[in-house]
Amino acid sequence: MSERDNLVVRFVKTPPPGPLAADVFSWEKEPLAELQDGEILVRHIYLSIDAGSRAQLDERTGYVIHASAGKVMMGAGAVAEVVESRHEQWRAGDVLAVAYACWQSYQVIRPDTETLFRVDPTVAPIAMHLGALGWVGFTAFIGIFEVGKPLAGETVLVSAAAGATGSLAGQFAKISGARVVGIAGGAQKCALVKEQFGFDDCIDYKRGDIGESIAGACPEGVDVYYDNVGGEIQRAAFAHMNTFGRVALCGQVTQYSGEGAAPGPNLMVAVRQRLTVRGFLVSDHLERREEFVEAASRWYREGRLQHQVTVTQGLENIHEAINSLTLGHNLGKQLCQVADEPAH
Amino acid sequence: MSERDNLVVRFVKTPPPGPLAADVFSWEKEPLAELQDGEILVRHIYLSIDAGSRAQLDERTGYVIHASAGKVMMGAGAVAEVVESRHEQWRAGDVLAVAYACWQSYQVIRPDTETLFRVDPTVAPIAMHLGALGWVGFTAFIGIFEVGKPLAGETVLVSAAAGATGSLAGQFAKISGARVVGIAGGAQKCALVKEQFGFDDCIDYKRGDIGESIAGACPEGVDVYYDNVGGEIQRAAFAHMNTFGRVALCGQVTQYSGEGAAPGPNLMVAVRQRLTVRGFLVSDHLERREEFVEAASRWYREGRLQHQVTVTQGLENIHEAINSLTLGHNLGKQLCQVADEPAH
Repeated sequence: MSERDNLVVRFVKTPPPGPLAADVFSWEKEPLAELQDGEILVRHIYLSIDAGSRAQLDERTGYVIHASAGKVMMGAGAVAEVVESRHEQWRAGDVLAVAYACWQSYQVIRPDTETLFRVDPTVAPIAMHLGALGWVGFTAFIGIFEVGKPLAGETVLVSAAAGATGSLAGQFAKISGARVVGIAGGAQKCALVKEQFGFDDCIDYKRGDIGESIAGACPEGVDVYYDNVGGEIQRAAFAHMNTFGRVALCGQVTQYSGEGAAPGPNLMVAVRQRLTVRGFLVSDHLERREEFVEAASRWYREGRLQHQVTVTQGLENIHEAINSLTLGHNLGKQLCQVADEPAH
Repeated sequence: MSERDNLVVRFVKTPPPGPLAADVFSWEKEPLAELQDGEILVRHIYLSIDAGSRAQLDERTGYVIHASAGKVMMGAGAVAEVVESRHEQWRAGDVLAVAYACWQSYQVIRPDTETLFRVDPTVAPIAMHLGALGWVGFTAFIGIFEVGKPLAGETVLVSAAAGATGSLAGQFAKISGARVVGIAGGAQKCALVKEQFGFDDCIDYKRGDIGESIAGACPEGVDVYYDNVGGEIQRAAFAHMNTFGRVALCGQVTQYSGEGAAPGPNLMVAVRQRLTVRGFLVSDHLERREEFVEAASRWYREGRLQHQVTVTQGLENIHEAINSLTLGHNLGKQLCQVADEPAH
């Protein structure tokens, strides 16, 4: 490869609240170190864009990690193709998913010390390994099967239901036998949530009072609330929880753009209704990953698990991929495609 | 008995926020129905005064029950002496604790359909059956041993630590082997919490910034927070929780006087630290009551469990007993004594 082909995205400075301008990052062509024994060179095809991609740019978000000025940006995973291998278990043309990926065109990886998953491009779209079969799918799986644990016939309410994690959480809840109600922004997303992802109902939070909408769509109350968003929707959902309800706290995307932390719900309802409210990160639950991949792959093959991606083209547009997510323009998993898929 | 002796307290009207005036209740002498077979007549000696005594007077508190205008007030328990019995298992002079008690001098009880506990006045002060050996003790027991579950060496933070439930929760946490830090208002209460109840440290929330005080008193962070109060102290405590911390939500006494519901903590910290936040009511855990009474009685006999009461004299002053509690003037369990203890 020519070193001119390796474009590297570095963090420049904390952006003001709201959508990102291009000056938040720098893009420079940089050489790669020569490949050593035990290493592989991969070209990134898809980079995962997540709520954390924006949240890490601003310390006020309270997110788990923070970007550092001048450092290469990191994201929650990539799908990549091996270009050159000096590791005996990998060869050029192999496709893999990696858990953490630098935002650059190419990457040198040492397979023996990194978490790689081999991707079979003939079984499912390779992008799915950053979605339903990747971290977001695993997050939804843990949120439903480890934290929320809905029973058949219970009502599960899912915020950001058209988003990557929410759309999967709702589908997993349906597989549990629950009645599933989504919350999404706009008629198009609500239609998608019901028609493609199979939710029983979907609330458009941009229309009317969110509390009244929840009451209307959940006439028997809410047993499990899967929360991705925080803020006003979270406060409204808490007010409609049933006795012994469970709240699975996955993240608070409404506070990831630097607007700061909104007040949370008054927790008297948690006493009155004996709620269990639990925050979780999938990294604490890796012992269930294998079970998850097996189950989700089977549900996909059986047609019980639908997958949707929104793809922003070009590493040079990765800030726009983040904006697409934080502005809620995405349907399903948000990706940035940085190179063509391999031909198979 | 003469019917003139039976004073009955009825609810008149929702009071304004803040301390109660006497016009919130009416006091009238009323006749009692004639005793039937299977019934006993008791005279109340101590009535339990709880946060709920105030909270039930105002619907805005979000409390589990509400008083009704014109109806006899109910409280969470009494210790009483049997005056007359037409039930074969009870005789005049027996002492008992009852789970719910009308606020009046005398009461007719049907033992076969009410939850009564026999009290041995020679083993412990009879008032203790409304405190450490009663519902407040059971609440603290469930909050620590069922919800918070501190491990030896962990740090447990207890709000309202000089109060009935808090003082017991802290002592139970000490019995678990945890390091226990209380929060109370004023130097006198803090001294009591440390010296009488054996907490390792106690924060005076009336001095300095509560967040800084928690950080100073809990240098290794907080693993279990036992919350009685809600409001600002709750928000500060959440900010200092350790990874995998547990919050036991017992009630929110700061919002029981009609000031309304303060915002809760922003829950991003619950995601970042993977907290489990759980509201509970002891009525869901009756299967552990026998175990609790056995354990708490043993710890009392062993000198490991200290008991403190604040007694307001006279049924005609029961509104002042409530004010004593809501204004934080009480040390330990707040009671209203409505008759002399039996001579033994």
